Amino acid sequence: MNPAHPPIVALITDFGLQDEYVGVMKGVILSVNPEARIVDVCHTIEPHGIVQAGRMLVSVTPYFPPETVFVVVVDPGVGGERDILAVRREGIVLLAPDNGLLSVWRDDWLSVEIVRVQQARYFLSRVSRTFHGRDIFAPVAGHLTRGIALKELGPAVAPGGIQRVSVPKIRIEGEGEVRGTVIAVDRFGNLITDIHSEVLSELERMQPKRDWRIEVRQTRLYGLCSFYGEVDLGQPLALIGSRGTLEIAVNGGSAAVHLDAEAGTPVLVRTAR
Amino acid sequence: MNPAHPPIVALITDFGLQDEYVGVMKGVILSVNPEARIVDVCHTIEPHGIVQAGRMLVSVTPYFPPETVFVVVVDPGVGGERDILAVRREGIVLLAPDNGLLSVWRDDWLSVEIVRVQQARYFLSRVSRTFHGRDIFAPVAGHLTRGIALKELGPAVAPGGIQRVSVPKIRIEGEGEVRGTVIAVDRFGNLITDIHSEVLSELERMQPKRDWRIEVRQTRLYGLCSFYGEVDLGQPLALIGSRGTLEIAVNGGSAAVHLDAEAGTPVLVRTAR
Amino acid sequence: MNPAHPPIVALITDFGLQDEYVGVMKGVILSVNPEARIVDVCHTIEPHGIVQAGRMLVSVTPYFPPETVFVVVVDPGVGGERDILAVRREGIVLLAPDNGLLSVWRDDWLSVEIVRVQQARYFLSRVSRTFHGRDIFAPVAGHLTRGIALKELGPAVAPGGIQRVSVPKIRIEGEGEVRGTVIAVDRFGNLITDIHSEVLSELERMQPKRDWRIEVRQTRLYGLCSFYGEVDLGQPLALIGSRGTLEIAVNGGSAAVHLDAEAGTPVLVRTAR
Repeated sequence: MNPAHPPIVALITDFGLQDEYVGVMKGVILSVNPEARIVDVCHTIEPHGIVQAGRMLVSVTPYFPPETVFVVVVDPGVGGERDILAVRREGIVLLAPDNGLLSVWRDDWLSVEIVRVQQARYFLSRVSRTFHGRDIFAPVAGHLTRGIALKELGPAVAPGGIQRVSVPKIRIEGEGEVRGTVIAVDRFGNLITDIHSEVLSELERMQPKRDWRIEVRQTRLYGLCSFYGEVDLGQPLALIGSRGTLEIAVNGGSAAVHLDAEAGTPVLVRTAR
Repeated sequence: MNPAHPPIVALITDFGLQDEYVGVMKGVILSVNPEARIVDVCHTIEPHGIVQAGRMLVSVTPYFPPETVFVVVVDPGVGGERDILAVRREGIVLLAPDNGLLSVWRDDWLSVEIVRVQQARYFLSRVSRTFHGRDIFAPVAGHLTRGIALKELGPAVAPGGIQRVSVPKIRIEGEGEVRGTVIAVDRFGNLITDIHSEVLSELERMQPKRDWRIEVRQTRLYGLCSFYGEVDLGQPLALIGSRGTLEIAVNGGSAAVHLDAEAGTPVLVRTAR
Repeated sequence: MNPAHPPIVALITDFGLQDEYVGVMKGVILSVNPEARIVDVCHTIEPHGIVQAGRMLVSVTPYFPPETVFVVVVDPGVGGERDILAVRREGIVLLAPDNGLLSVWRDDWLSVEIVRVQQARYFLSRVSRTFHGRDIFAPVAGHLTRGIALKELGPAVAPGGIQRVSVPKIRIEGEGEVRGTVIAVDRFGNLITDIHSEVLSELERMQPKRDWRIEVRQTRLYGLCSFYGEVDLGQPLALIGSRGTLEIAVNGGSAAVHLDAEAGTPVLVRTAR
């Protein structure tokens, strides 16, 4: 840890903002380390949205300073058998339940430092079985920002020993077809898909992107745009969004409304034949 | 105040997040003390939800560092006759309107330091009659984090001189029956009740908790669980929640939806006879 | 910049809180300047609500410390031809797209320091065409809090060279009549109008305010109040709200519901004849 920099704790939870859960976690973090800077990344992960939380990590971890401690509390198994993991990877530290969400973030875990969080001396003195965010995650995050080593938290986890959830692997099929899904609708009504730009770069080696046909519900789009204003107001378009995945938008409007789409809607990119 | 620790201001309001009210308060706090760390505990107290704000204090104050300044702006009487109080208690400082919410937090006020906030030198130079959060609470909180004594803010309030609102006192009735109410539904659909674990500990002296029957609407639950995953997915359960009160939940689902319950729904715990 | 004060970045966006956009911006700001204090002013500007964002600046900028860097990302033209401006005015710095929102904040721009933000060395190394909040606004804000001069960001903009959007200018008409509009409904259901207290002060020179008649939908109010509790619970009233404009409220209730009004509803203040 660079002692010259104030330590940062970044929070991702499904707690929402209408209850005091997030505020209490902050109180505990600051009780352990009053110097910590706490950043709310997102607290509106759908309840128990493990995949959504893992995908959000993909979008955000590259943009935070080294040594940021990410705390991800999307934890339907709280109080039961599931472990809590602490991970050091790519210069940051992550605390998360071992329920598969980390496998959505990255799929290669062979040479990564991972430990089971078990040392109760870093927990609150009284640990409930319903709110580990407050009783374990928050105080451990505070201690991590004060520089304790991961190995002080508990035993190492064998390479690749984390829980996994399966997420569809998007690939080029047949003679040049990519089938994906809308995984999120943002506040603007943009449709975020799980089709990564890498797959589309491959597809581009088969055919220039201006010839692709993109299908969402009854709408057919031709070619990829670069930004929203490239089409007329109210018109739909496809582009690579800020998450590095295919995004369907309507310039100045909501693609979710105009195309009658939502999370789960299939999206097809096909080359012209 | 421990000068080695950055000062913390914790905010609880009914202002919501769609307006600029909370942001403006933060600007004012930072204008008075740029070193203040501001923590949003909750801004979605129901408009004028005095009891809800007082109850939230119960859940959160134990988890914040000593010397935290809590600012509670749930203030339907703003601009009128009601006083603003500053209180030092249990190592923290609270600023709140004298409208009863502090009596919900604690009911014993005999030997507590309380003052009326009246010294205009600590207010903004122009005080509106509609937004004391900005014009009085925020600047006074800033000054408190800079170490002014409570007595500098105004005259002491006589022991027990605060306004009170009555909140049902939950007790064991008859031959072993506790009648409470759902007081909140959290984001997961968990039903938070006003039945404290202390009362249930008493009940346990009358009969082991595995024999209790808990009734919510048409649902009968038998015994208390320890954590959500103790029952099958989709099944309801009762446990002591993270607030230290009886909570009704559905593992992996919403008790509010499954049991058709909401704030105000009666909850009954009865011993078997 | 006063090096004794931690630098403050105040954020106003239309990104909402359900996505990671705001969190990612904070990560980038802290990557550039880990000492920055980031204040969320509002992230629920209606999508592409340029006028709403400009009006919010009016309400908040006077309450922040000198040298605060305001970042306003309401940017329907992202990725296209529109410029990004950095402005030093009234002791603060603002970063905003050149889409008219600054003209809603202030209408006189003759002797103000304004530059076009063009120096890519202050941007992220890879700039998308869909998320300049992350790739340009956030890193530039970080650099501004570290003390770079505006002129390092790009060429000066000629006096008065910013884009403008027209906003109705509210004036006294005829023999003493002011026609305005509800521009926002806050969380309490209060109706915020665009009728500024200055115009009403003029009107007061024509007739004492106790004789005015204020009309909203079917409701007629007589005279201005000073605070909500001045009328009985459930009764409507008009007053000068905390934004310095005419506000219609219901004591202890929602004026939006009781008066069946919303953003866009006309409001009339007329002197008795």
